[in-house]
Amino acid sequence: MINAAGREIPDEFLHDGVEPFQGIYYRDGYHYQKAAPTVRAYVRPQADKLVDSVKDAVIATGLKDGMTISFHHHLRDGDYVVNMVMKAIHELGIRDLTVCASSLGKAHNYLVTCIQDGTVTGISTSGIRDEIGEVISAGQLKHPAVIRTHGGRARAIEDGTIHIDVAFIGASTSDQYGNASGKGGQSDTGVLSYMGSDVHYADQVVILTDTLVDAPNFPAAIQGIDVDYVVLVTKIGDPNKIATGALRLSKDTRELGIAENAAKCMYHSGLFKDGFTFQTGAGGPSLATTIFLKQYMQQEHIKCRWAMGGVTEPIVNLFHEGYIQNILDDQAFDLAAVGSVLTDTNHYEITASQYANPFNKGAFVNQLDFVILGALEVDVDFNVNVVQGSNGILQGAPGGHPDTAAGAKVTIIVAPLIRSRLATVRTRVTSVTTPGESVDIVVTDYGVAVNPRRQDLLAAFADTDIPLLSIEELRDLAYQYAGEPSPLEFEDQVVALIEYRDGTLIDVVKKPKLQK
Amino acid sequence: MINAAGREIPDEFLHDGVEPFQGIYYRDGYHYQKAAPTVRAYVRPQADKLVDSVKDAVIATGLKDGMTISFHHHLRDGDYVVNMVMKAIHELGIRDLTVCASSLGKAHNYLVTCIQDGTVTGISTSGIRDEIGEVISAGQLKHPAVIRTHGGRARAIEDGTIHIDVAFIGASTSDQYGNASGKGGQSDTGVLSYMGSDVHYADQVVILTDTLVDAPNFPAAIQGIDVDYVVLVTKIGDPNKIATGALRLSKDTRELGIAENAAKCMYHSGLFKDGFTFQTGAGGPSLATTIFLKQYMQQEHIKCRWAMGGVTEPIVNLFHEGYIQNILDDQAFDLAAVGSVLTDTNHYEITASQYANPFNKGAFVNQLDFVILGALEVDVDFNVNVVQGSNGILQGAPGGHPDTAAGAKVTIIVAPLIRSRLATVRTRVTSVTTPGESVDIVVTDYGVAVNPRRQDLLAAFADTDIPLLSIEELRDLAYQYAGEPSPLEFEDQVVALIEYRDGTLIDVVKKPKLQK
Repeated sequence: MINAAGREIPDEFLHDGVEPFQGIYYRDGYHYQKAAPTVRAYVRPQADKLVDSVKDAVIATGLKDGMTISFHHHLRDGDYVVNMVMKAIHELGIRDLTVCASSLGKAHNYLVTCIQDGTVTGISTSGIRDEIGEVISAGQLKHPAVIRTHGGRARAIEDGTIHIDVAFIGASTSDQYGNASGKGGQSDTGVLSYMGSDVHYADQVVILTDTLVDAPNFPAAIQGIDVDYVVLVTKIGDPNKIATGALRLSKDTRELGIAENAAKCMYHSGLFKDGFTFQTGAGGPSLATTIFLKQYMQQEHIKCRWAMGGVTEPIVNLFHEGYIQNILDDQAFDLAAVGSVLTDTNHYEITASQYANPFNKGAFVNQLDFVILGALEVDVDFNVNVVQGSNGILQGAPGGHPDTAAGAKVTIIVAPLIRSRLATVRTRVTSVTTPGESVDIVVTDYGVAVNPRRQDLLAAFADTDIPLLSIEELRDLAYQYAGEPSPLEFEDQVVALIEYRDGTLIDVVKKPKLQK
Repeated sequence: MINAAGREIPDEFLHDGVEPFQGIYYRDGYHYQKAAPTVRAYVRPQADKLVDSVKDAVIATGLKDGMTISFHHHLRDGDYVVNMVMKAIHELGIRDLTVCASSLGKAHNYLVTCIQDGTVTGISTSGIRDEIGEVISAGQLKHPAVIRTHGGRARAIEDGTIHIDVAFIGASTSDQYGNASGKGGQSDTGVLSYMGSDVHYADQVVILTDTLVDAPNFPAAIQGIDVDYVVLVTKIGDPNKIATGALRLSKDTRELGIAENAAKCMYHSGLFKDGFTFQTGAGGPSLATTIFLKQYMQQEHIKCRWAMGGVTEPIVNLFHEGYIQNILDDQAFDLAAVGSVLTDTNHYEITASQYANPFNKGAFVNQLDFVILGALEVDVDFNVNVVQGSNGILQGAPGGHPDTAAGAKVTIIVAPLIRSRLATVRTRVTSVTTPGESVDIVVTDYGVAVNPRRQDLLAAFADTDIPLLSIEELRDLAYQYAGEPSPLEFEDQVVALIEYRDGTLIDVVKKPKLQK
């Protein structure tokens, strides 16, 4: 059947309560019973949670064939935890596991081996890149991968869609009782936000740390009352790859132009008022928007009440300069963010559920005025693809994209019209990650298109110098310069399901046919 | 049948999985599925949680006859919240409610009216004092009250023994999204620890505050993602009664003598080492123990890693002087504690579950070296009663007494041998709150008795000046001076069940016969 984003969802995936996407607020007011883990009571005092090795921890949990395990990606490209745990599991010969990760990339390539030999047969993730993306795109994973947003992952765990048997959590520091933090230690990740739901809904929780500290390790992102085992390992990650150095602000004229127009849209939106809230991504044009935003804030004498998101140095700088009063942090993208969340009073760690879960009683995305997001592709219905390359290969991450887009009053997509000689704006995206219903403005280096649903913004921008075009005009320009993309060919095999944040299916990804 | 504490539990209360008390670690390693509330998803952004009045909030929740509501007692004798909510419920004519409170006392006397007219027919509480205690003792509550420890209340909520339909939470400050805190505002309670389980396991959560602040109200004890409604009221309490002024350290020679011997027991126990942990209560002899403890710490050059509990000024002072490195706070007993948790970096708020829940993965009571606790009565089996007066009337609180006693390596009871001309140490306590299995030392003004289970302590104290007597000798002394207490007479009606922290029944309280 065809869902509300105009995508065909094969009937075979619509069972056990799974519905096709039916609009971004379809589930508003939905009542549901939360999931409930089965846990062990530690009544006797002085219980020792320390185990000698990762393998011993896996054995202690009683992990069995067919179970589900979870990981976070706060250690980013420097993560050693996923591979360490998977190697131990591999050695123990446990098979048919589902891995529920907050994101997967090049640090996790041992999963490729595990996928190929049946150790791992299911994957749920909010990001899928590098070799893992290729292997899944090639149909080597037994079951289709489920791509979930950051908020959708928290929701799926909390509403019982996915049940985690054991969460394996790399923590920068922990005490012997499992009070664990992303702050300090040898491998400082700043926050551990993505594990906020895992620790409360997994049956068992294992902390891996390379820095054991005296109790109580407070403030703790993860409380010892939720932790079964603690393993001291040599290194949980490579600090040099956990956070990149300072992200430099763009000097690319094209990116600066996009950024300037994005800031201009915010300024003229009618919502650019003292106490406004916003989020920007980590891409070049998103980051550069902060330069122009600062100018408007100076000019109008207004301040931002809070900025949220994956946090980057430009946001930390605006915070230190007093333009932003609070930072809500679910992911530290660079060393400046890691440093700031460690020491700055009004820079707060929030969980992924607080950030973006559509099924709690009001995530912070619901209070966003503006969000500035990137795109791999945008189509004339304003649908955005951030998961699948234009070659059909999985190589992206929904992350909080659909979550913030649904929550923010104004959602701005920033993207070059042409990327790698391919049209970004096109008639139809390869797959839909974020539905056009939640996308308000598309800013490119060739002009700005406003979703016709937002007549209020079109009116607000009417007498400004924002270079307005229709989305079709942008598409036509893109096709004029880069040519109309030739349709990709796919096999019948579905290799990934793209779940909307509320659990409905917004799209499926099929195995691309090998190019001749 | 007779349980492991030697108390008779009528069979009629042993059903639906309720078992008699069978030893303090009976449920260690118990696996159970956690409770799961039914909640509402707030998918649509900018949802307004503010309602105009308490009555509107009650109506908004759809509260119905037979439901369970919950409250905390952080506002202590200054609490306006319970009465405010009960009056609104009363006006709406909703009946047959169960009230699950963290404690009840003289600020909550409107409950008496509600009990008498059937608005409230069930009560679960960790403290029961004043007129409410009298009314329940007189058998006026339809169902027996259930007396739970602080840890046991958290457990009962988390394991589904009690399901809360609506939690009504007084908060010193809140933003409009329900991010709420016990800090700041007009009625500063310091912490909101007792609501830690309620907010995650109640179907609906209502915040009542008299101080609405800008979002995000961080750090928040209660997260907005768990809150349905916020009501701004004129006053949630009387600040003058919330926390007493500075508790003065005792100058009573008898109390000082008890305190000195309690500290001496700690000193000679073999566990008085650098990094030790302890908790003291708020009673005179408990507080005074800190004076002597400080002397021993100076003398031995050792520091306390953390002190926990209901926090009082003497503990805060030791912390400020550097003798205590961290404070773990689940209740602020006075203004010094309220002030310290607001400003001192290493003074941490913990939830009741973190504090004492026997069914999570290791509460902090499990890491206690020493706890010093009071008693209304102690018997020759070292059982302690802190709930029922020697006249049979309910007038006390288990609080964290049984929790800390079970967790601590050394549990010390401090009490005068005679109180109000009645023997404190006696052959048999009126009812058992804390089983003798978890009580190690009884310190009175006439001597110190060590539980024969603790031969290690008896050996450690052998060559000291601690005035050792057997518990029977203490009992005999008490009877010699105060006379042997004449047995109370009771009706058959059971007015309260005393639940041990693990959910088993340790005792029942019957309606005392009217004195002729």
